[in-house]
Amino acid sequence: MKLHSYFRSSAAYRVRIALHLKGLPFDYVPVHLLRGEHREAGYAGRVGDALLPALELDEGPLLTQSMAIIEYLEETHSAVPLLPADALGRAHVRALAQMIACEIHPLNNLRVLKYLVHTLQVSEDAKTQWYQHWAGSGLAAVERQLGLLAEERRAAGLPESVFCWGDAPGLADCCLVPQVFNARRFGLTLDALPRIAAIVERCEALPAFALAHPEACPDHQ
Amino acid sequence: MKLHSYFRSSAAYRVRIALHLKGLPFDYVPVHLLRGEHREAGYAGRVGDALLPALELDEGPLLTQSMAIIEYLEETHSAVPLLPADALGRAHVRALAQMIACEIHPLNNLRVLKYLVHTLQVSEDAKTQWYQHWAGSGLAAVERQLGLLAEERRAAGLPESVFCWGDAPGLADCCLVPQVFNARRFGLTLDALPRIAAIVERCEALPAFALAHPEACPDHQ
Repeated sequence: MKLHSYFRSSAAYRVRIALHLKGLPFDYVPVHLLRGEHREAGYAGRVGDALLPALELDEGPLLTQSMAIIEYLEETHSAVPLLPADALGRAHVRALAQMIACEIHPLNNLRVLKYLVHTLQVSEDAKTQWYQHWAGSGLAAVERQLGLLAEERRAAGLPESVFCWGDAPGLADCCLVPQVFNARRFGLTLDALPRIAAIVERCEALPAFALAHPEACPDHQ
Repeated sequence: MKLHSYFRSSAAYRVRIALHLKGLPFDYVPVHLLRGEHREAGYAGRVGDALLPALELDEGPLLTQSMAIIEYLEETHSAVPLLPADALGRAHVRALAQMIACEIHPLNNLRVLKYLVHTLQVSEDAKTQWYQHWAGSGLAAVERQLGLLAEERRAAGLPESVFCWGDAPGLADCCLVPQVFNARRFGLTLDALPRIAAIVERCEALPAFALAHPEACPDHQ
């Protein structure tokens, strides 16, 4: 497998974590976002939205969209599961992941920030406030949801979660860690988000998360 | 089951389609977005991000995030599948769905448009251009992806798709139809998107899509 990635792409970072958690070897194909390499024909001609990451299978097809790629890895390499075994737990984990992938990240990626500055001509301050508003309120929502899920587990007699849900890192953790990495770059702290802070700390202590880190990528600069 | 919904919410519309495609009965619980009912304690106290929709199971737990809800329905009610049987097909369908749920819809929902107008104080024209830029470029990306998938099917000797992927409506169609409904409200046409136009027309001819339509909702006004 080949992963088309950019070291700083949060969506690519999610898939890198999933690949390392599952212990799957892959070739790293760097696509330089800032230089616009994703819009060049070689990549954009094969990926409808020309976004990163894409997973190229040995048999040929290219898979796009990070969450779909991780679900594919989950279905085809079940040895280290990233989703719980029960449907209710799976729904909770997927919802946490989507709270990040659908509500936080899309508002704060490079192309949106560029539109704010170049087309709407907002100031650097207003851009930073935009970022902090959506990432801050979005992560606060994740924190509340983690609290609600903790109550649900207590009521059901389940042990307290160590990661986003249960005692092993999964799909939601694959999304949370890159989002927090990104938020820290924009000056957000986790001071008011103790559940998230504890989960991220536990994740960052694991080799799979370290291997997937932007600074560990061959195209890191 | 109870679906907490607002007639015009695209995310709730997706789940309504899935429920009707699967023929699952549900109680409709209206939550008035414009009046801010989703932020009141009765709802916001149970849903971390206070967003719509939420699916309340008879056993008690509340499921959030439309894509996670549809995956849950798929796992617990497999009779009318919304995902293909093979992992590659499933990855393609999920990727199309995520192209809408992660790249188009989050930039154009009510709270984001409100932020543009109230906080960034952009003009009505600039707000409409913002909408048309993200929905227009996002749907164009979906159109290109549908073309790439059509080529992949041809190369693999598979019959031409009738819906987003294959010969039955699925998760991607559940996302596409509400997004197109929304885009039309903002003046976008499908003139340059013939694959999407054909799929939407086929979907809209089906009873499940008609039953899920905003105008068929009890809280429609």
